[in-house]
Amino acid sequence: MTSDPPPPTGSDGGLLAPVRAGTRVEALTSDRAWVRAMLDAEAALARAQARAGLIPGEAAALIDGTAAALTVDAADLARRARQSAGPVAPLVSDLREAVTGAGGKNAARLVHRGATSQDILDTAAMLVATRAIAAITADLESVMRLLADLAQRHRATVMAARTLGQHAVPTTFGLKAAGWLAGLLHARDRLRVLRLPAQLGGAAGTLAALVEAARQEAAHDPQARALSLVETYAEELGLRTPLVPWHAERSVVGELGAALSGTASALGKAATDVILMAQTEVGEVAESSQGGSSTMPHKRNPALSVLIRSASLQVPTYAQVLGREGGHERAAGAWQAEWSPLRECLRLTGGAAETAVELVAGLRVFPDRMRANAELSGGRIVSERLAAHLDRDELRAALDQEGPLGGPPELLDPAGYLGAAPELVDRVLAAYRERS
Amino acid sequence: MTSDPPPPTGSDGGLLAPVRAGTRVEALTSDRAWVRAMLDAEAALARAQARAGLIPGEAAALIDGTAAALTVDAADLARRARQSAGPVAPLVSDLREAVTGAGGKNAARLVHRGATSQDILDTAAMLVATRAIAAITADLESVMRLLADLAQRHRATVMAARTLGQHAVPTTFGLKAAGWLAGLLHARDRLRVLRLPAQLGGAAGTLAALVEAARQEAAHDPQARALSLVETYAEELGLRTPLVPWHAERSVVGELGAALSGTASALGKAATDVILMAQTEVGEVAESSQGGSSTMPHKRNPALSVLIRSASLQVPTYAQVLGREGGHERAAGAWQAEWSPLRECLRLTGGAAETAVELVAGLRVFPDRMRANAELSGGRIVSERLAAHLDRDELRAALDQEGPLGGPPELLDPAGYLGAAPELVDRVLAAYRERS
Amino acid sequence: MTSDPPPPTGSDGGLLAPVRAGTRVEALTSDRAWVRAMLDAEAALARAQARAGLIPGEAAALIDGTAAALTVDAADLARRARQSAGPVAPLVSDLREAVTGAGGKNAARLVHRGATSQDILDTAAMLVATRAIAAITADLESVMRLLADLAQRHRATVMAARTLGQHAVPTTFGLKAAGWLAGLLHARDRLRVLRLPAQLGGAAGTLAALVEAARQEAAHDPQARALSLVETYAEELGLRTPLVPWHAERSVVGELGAALSGTASALGKAATDVILMAQTEVGEVAESSQGGSSTMPHKRNPALSVLIRSASLQVPTYAQVLGREGGHERAAGAWQAEWSPLRECLRLTGGAAETAVELVAGLRVFPDRMRANAELSGGRIVSERLAAHLDRDELRAALDQEGPLGGPPELLDPAGYLGAAPELVDRVLAAYRERS
Amino acid sequence: MTSDPPPPTGSDGGLLAPVRAGTRVEALTSDRAWVRAMLDAEAALARAQARAGLIPGEAAALIDGTAAALTVDAADLARRARQSAGPVAPLVSDLREAVTGAGGKNAARLVHRGATSQDILDTAAMLVATRAIAAITADLESVMRLLADLAQRHRATVMAARTLGQHAVPTTFGLKAAGWLAGLLHARDRLRVLRLPAQLGGAAGTLAALVEAARQEAAHDPQARALSLVETYAEELGLRTPLVPWHAERSVVGELGAALSGTASALGKAATDVILMAQTEVGEVAESSQGGSSTMPHKRNPALSVLIRSASLQVPTYAQVLGREGGHERAAGAWQAEWSPLRECLRLTGGAAETAVELVAGLRVFPDRMRANAELSGGRIVSERLAAHLDRDELRAALDQEGPLGGPPELLDPAGYLGAAPELVDRVLAAYRERS
Repeated sequence: MTSDPPPPTGSDGGLLAPVRAGTRVEALTSDRAWVRAMLDAEAALARAQARAGLIPGEAAALIDGTAAALTVDAADLARRARQSAGPVAPLVSDLREAVTGAGGKNAARLVHRGATSQDILDTAAMLVATRAIAAITADLESVMRLLADLAQRHRATVMAARTLGQHAVPTTFGLKAAGWLAGLLHARDRLRVLRLPAQLGGAAGTLAALVEAARQEAAHDPQARALSLVETYAEELGLRTPLVPWHAERSVVGELGAALSGTASALGKAATDVILMAQTEVGEVAESSQGGSSTMPHKRNPALSVLIRSASLQVPTYAQVLGREGGHERAAGAWQAEWSPLRECLRLTGGAAETAVELVAGLRVFPDRMRANAELSGGRIVSERLAAHLDRDELRAALDQEGPLGGPPELLDPAGYLGAAPELVDRVLAAYRERS
Repeated sequence: MTSDPPPPTGSDGGLLAPVRAGTRVEALTSDRAWVRAMLDAEAALARAQARAGLIPGEAAALIDGTAAALTVDAADLARRARQSAGPVAPLVSDLREAVTGAGGKNAARLVHRGATSQDILDTAAMLVATRAIAAITADLESVMRLLADLAQRHRATVMAARTLGQHAVPTTFGLKAAGWLAGLLHARDRLRVLRLPAQLGGAAGTLAALVEAARQEAAHDPQARALSLVETYAEELGLRTPLVPWHAERSVVGELGAALSGTASALGKAATDVILMAQTEVGEVAESSQGGSSTMPHKRNPALSVLIRSASLQVPTYAQVLGREGGHERAAGAWQAEWSPLRECLRLTGGAAETAVELVAGLRVFPDRMRANAELSGGRIVSERLAAHLDRDELRAALDQEGPLGGPPELLDPAGYLGAAPELVDRVLAAYRERS
Repeated sequence: MTSDPPPPTGSDGGLLAPVRAGTRVEALTSDRAWVRAMLDAEAALARAQARAGLIPGEAAALIDGTAAALTVDAADLARRARQSAGPVAPLVSDLREAVTGAGGKNAARLVHRGATSQDILDTAAMLVATRAIAAITADLESVMRLLADLAQRHRATVMAARTLGQHAVPTTFGLKAAGWLAGLLHARDRLRVLRLPAQLGGAAGTLAALVEAARQEAAHDPQARALSLVETYAEELGLRTPLVPWHAERSVVGELGAALSGTASALGKAATDVILMAQTEVGEVAESSQGGSSTMPHKRNPALSVLIRSASLQVPTYAQVLGREGGHERAAGAWQAEWSPLRECLRLTGGAAETAVELVAGLRVFPDRMRANAELSGGRIVSERLAAHLDRDELRAALDQEGPLGGPPELLDPAGYLGAAPELVDRVLAAYRERS
Repeated sequence: MTSDPPPPTGSDGGLLAPVRAGTRVEALTSDRAWVRAMLDAEAALARAQARAGLIPGEAAALIDGTAAALTVDAADLARRARQSAGPVAPLVSDLREAVTGAGGKNAARLVHRGATSQDILDTAAMLVATRAIAAITADLESVMRLLADLAQRHRATVMAARTLGQHAVPTTFGLKAAGWLAGLLHARDRLRVLRLPAQLGGAAGTLAALVEAARQEAAHDPQARALSLVETYAEELGLRTPLVPWHAERSVVGELGAALSGTASALGKAATDVILMAQTEVGEVAESSQGGSSTMPHKRNPALSVLIRSASLQVPTYAQVLGREGGHERAAGAWQAEWSPLRECLRLTGGAAETAVELVAGLRVFPDRMRANAELSGGRIVSERLAAHLDRDELRAALDQEGPLGGPPELLDPAGYLGAAPELVDRVLAAYRERS
């Protein structure tokens, strides 16, 4: 896969999305990174055609080298993209000009041959997504490693489980962390099985121009030749060969969006719990970050969790625009509406993952406070247990009086009613190790 | 899996969603069907506890039999559900009363033991979803079989491919049908791999009450006993045993929603294309259904396609509410917000699938019209091909003049520029057969 | 406006949406209520034509009377609606049959004359919405009255303001209640200014058949006659006369959805705060409702708040399907996709409003706990104030030590740093009174 | 309102959203523009405090001048924004440093006094929105002027009306254009009545620090002083004074999103119709733009319409994130999630509006083709009219035979069955003139 160092800046509007400002995935999804991926696709197309004997090797080499070296003003390209409702046409024009300038007048005519602009943009999207997902899963691995430690360490650390905001029964902080881990494990697996396809179908998905080119070379079975060229092209790019062109069958994009949305939600789950546990009255965890307030010197805001949650509230909504059906062989609007939200899904999720590493690595846990909170209700947190031992009316009377419940301490101790919480932690940790 | 004949009516608001009115999936997702599934879960819980030796076999048998026979007024239950923010508590109360009425005073106390209301409702949701998905995939199979025939039959039927609404190059109707098939094949596979889990975690996902029950039976390793009971319970219901309780880790629901959304979009794609091809000026296909207008006697509306499209415009939006994170061990709102949209996703998708069978089975295809449309532009539809043969200026001049292009008929014939369209049809058909 | 008593049942799927189960708005939006509204529209059309001299008075009277008396099996109608992708055609057919049966063979031909099915369904939607909104605003008035009392009573009741989950500075519970009130006031005003239009455009919004009918009556200026008939029709129904038919200009529906979405969010805001304040560790308010748990006898769930929040998490999503553009004079899918989500928006919002009356009426407020929580941090809640009086380093040192802050009690008292909280309450109450 | 020339570039990710690439609204909503608006808010705060006598006039002048001159690296600011989950804290720190550097050590301490970061960011958002909306409505005015001309010119230009994709009855192209105009008129009015508020509430919306400052000045009635300062602040910025702080009552933002969403849909409606009418088989309009395809020389893509539609498919989705409720006095996530989608709504809508000017200004209309299409069905397009004149069986027989219908030409002429189409055009034009 042709690649180059991530561009130095990823400042596409990060000011309003600090969750991804300056993160790796921001750079990997910047306008520059998309331009780079489009050029990678054009170069791979030329190389694949050379390998198939459809264009001269020198022409391909010239295109490849020129594409690798080409730098483009993304903002200017964006403006020129309006005329053709997409950035590929002006980029091809720039590339042809550069190839011509490098002395390849004939090679210039072979740039982009057989492809349609959607071939290049869809392929670029899959390259960008593949690169971003590699960064995201690396961060997920880090978060999971930290959570596994946390779950192990607090396997039996008693705390109150809360349902509908109310103390329910005791649980352990280890099980809470294991729950976050289980969610991320699932999300990571889902991202890991994605094998994103290249796109190459020509004007309307029939490979007509490539077949024609093969026929002009007097190739035997030009159709087979064109089909096998698609494989070479995908291989050059490290992408999967699709069953058929997917210009108008967008399940790949929909599924990618759903997987990112699931990841953002899994990260958002941990962040939401941290925000709740960090509440002043609860005080069971704190972020290590400063999270300071410029006006209230005592405040320690759960800033990282809030950033993560800002992402998890956006991603599932944007994902909804992805993979919607359009008309005929290439859509008039539905496709063009996918580009921006796909990028947002990638970089908000990536930003959330990178932020989560920082959050979990620095999370401060206060077991004493957890214990104290669990005992806050004077034993009422084990009322379910008491219900199995006492008569209904006795129990109601006991609960209705003020102050701590009376009764045998071994029955009332939250630590004595953990159910299978520690064993459930073990199950999650075993699954985590097994699926590593 | 305990089951009973689908209820006779599924009229939960079908008036405003004719796409699913009277369909099988509507009955399978009615209020009655959900009540039935909740009772199935309670019965399975009792049977599983009996198998584990935690409750007497006769008690379980009585609960099982009573649950199977119980009929409940769903509207009344719904009203009583307000007090506990969910329908399980009043249903358990009805079931206990019925068991008591059947002479099982002690058995009544064992109803629902160890479970929390979310255990029952989540399990019921997975049962309902499993049953609905079986119906949906059966319909998808029918649609795919019909599409495979259509693709085969029209493998080389020339028509205009359209991109952004404009004639692009020629394609075949077979490839269009194969494209729909490829989308559905993917959607069907995605539904088929879903193995939905049972839910059983007790008050806060620690299995505390079941562990306690096992301990009261002086069981060795009560935790293991409780964990294995979850397996038995899932097995009784034909559902998967989850890694750990998933009260607050909702990826299962999010993924189910995404798979249904993908299915609805794949069906919507075919419907959208039919609507476009059936346009008066295009006239390449027609629905067999009457689709008559009460006021305009000449009209033949693509009514079935419109119904399907009404579903595909809704499902991805509703799916967005599914699988969102909530706080702590069980959420205060996010979970309760999932029930209705999950049902809508199931029954709109199911209605669309059943409607698609009818649509494709009766689709009338007009190859002559397709051919005539492809020739409408006097050969301009193969301008891409000409561009590979003519000088740029010559071509522009040819295109700019009025009327049909001049030139060798074999170059201008749309049928001569099909690229690999027929071979792509073959690939889709081969994949379809292989994955059957 | 022709109307009839709300149907006895509104059980369209209420089981999974207890927030609206058994509420008034559920009945007002049931399948039966929609059928009734469609018949009201047909009757008004006949009466309006009679007033315009286009059909005989007796025919109109017969149609009107028959429509008023007609009962229809909604589930059966829904099934028959599939053929024409909507319920109006089969309903018109039932009404014609009934009019014929009542001896009005000629009158039967005049049923629905000049209208298209979308005229009837859009008009019915606006009637249903108008009736539902009347119920919703009545409930909002009740909630606001209760909140105004609460705000007044707790104008100066000190509590901790929380930002990002952390204690910030002191505020008053009155200001919190006033904040909820301000949100509802805005939402109510927005609903109140909606004046929903009738729909009457004929087959494609040109009023062609009505103009033709007027012309056949040798009417002078048949166009003006048709246009004025639209006014009469709207007047008969108590709806607004639209500028022109709005079959394909859906801003009315989009705006209705946005207003309902805003209302649901305003209600959800109060519910969210109640859930947070009712947390076990916070304990500043409690719901009066039982909210009992079947397994944990000590628990008091904020069940009503959770119901409201389940609605506020759904409505904005459903609203998003409303008002989207479709093609040409009447859309093939976008319109048909609006019916169900519009109903959901109405009845979830209505259910939330009715539930909010119950919530606020029964809300138990614990000022002592509020005060105690505000003092929990030993004076740190007024650190912003201290920052205005102390040197930065002194302050940091003071904050960093354990235990309560030292210093003059009058500086440290939360009640002494309420800013303009009570005066802001006054402003909201004044606005509330003024806009009543 | 302090302002400065729009920054030279607005290239925040425009590559993937060519609909707004290089448009005015892109520049008005760039990171730089947001930074500028935040500085405007800080400057106005200082001036307002000086006017209220709470800070020295020279300090305010120094802050004001420094803020006006300050330039900030937005990408760097974004990165620093992570620590406090928002960009205001680091920006305040930069501003303080700059004021100190300008010799204003004491003035530096008065920067941002009394405000919380949300005050500044919300105010900046409203400034940015106000400026963007001014640009959007200016473009809408241009589009409307062009559409009014078009509607007038084609008031009686016969064309086929289509419903569900099928010819229904005749209409005029003028009425179609008038329909677009009516939608935009409504959208423009909705934007025009928005009067966006400033935000100033201090740490938790109680104005505590401003009241304290007033009290330190020994001011009489410090609460009233603080409240009136909010008015001065709003006035300095040209924004509305809100009833009370709206940190956690987000209806303003929700409503802004809904209005933009409505605007995008109204623009999308015109674009959708153009795409359909420009289809090769229909050919009733064409875009003037080149819209060329790099591979298919004959193609004329409706590129501008596609761009507009790409926006209208996104905006309602982004808008859905806006105005959602969060907890307590300032939300932990819901607020931070609003910033990016608000900007997207503004700039996609603005881009669509600017693009629509170009689209409508250059739209080529082909009345002959419209007429020919209307006659395509041999008179069947007036079957509704025939139904009013012929017996049902006669009509069915006539329609069922091949070829053109027989019968009196004056009955069959589409131009004779236009209903009130021209008069409806007049109504829209009159409303347009009246509401200008």
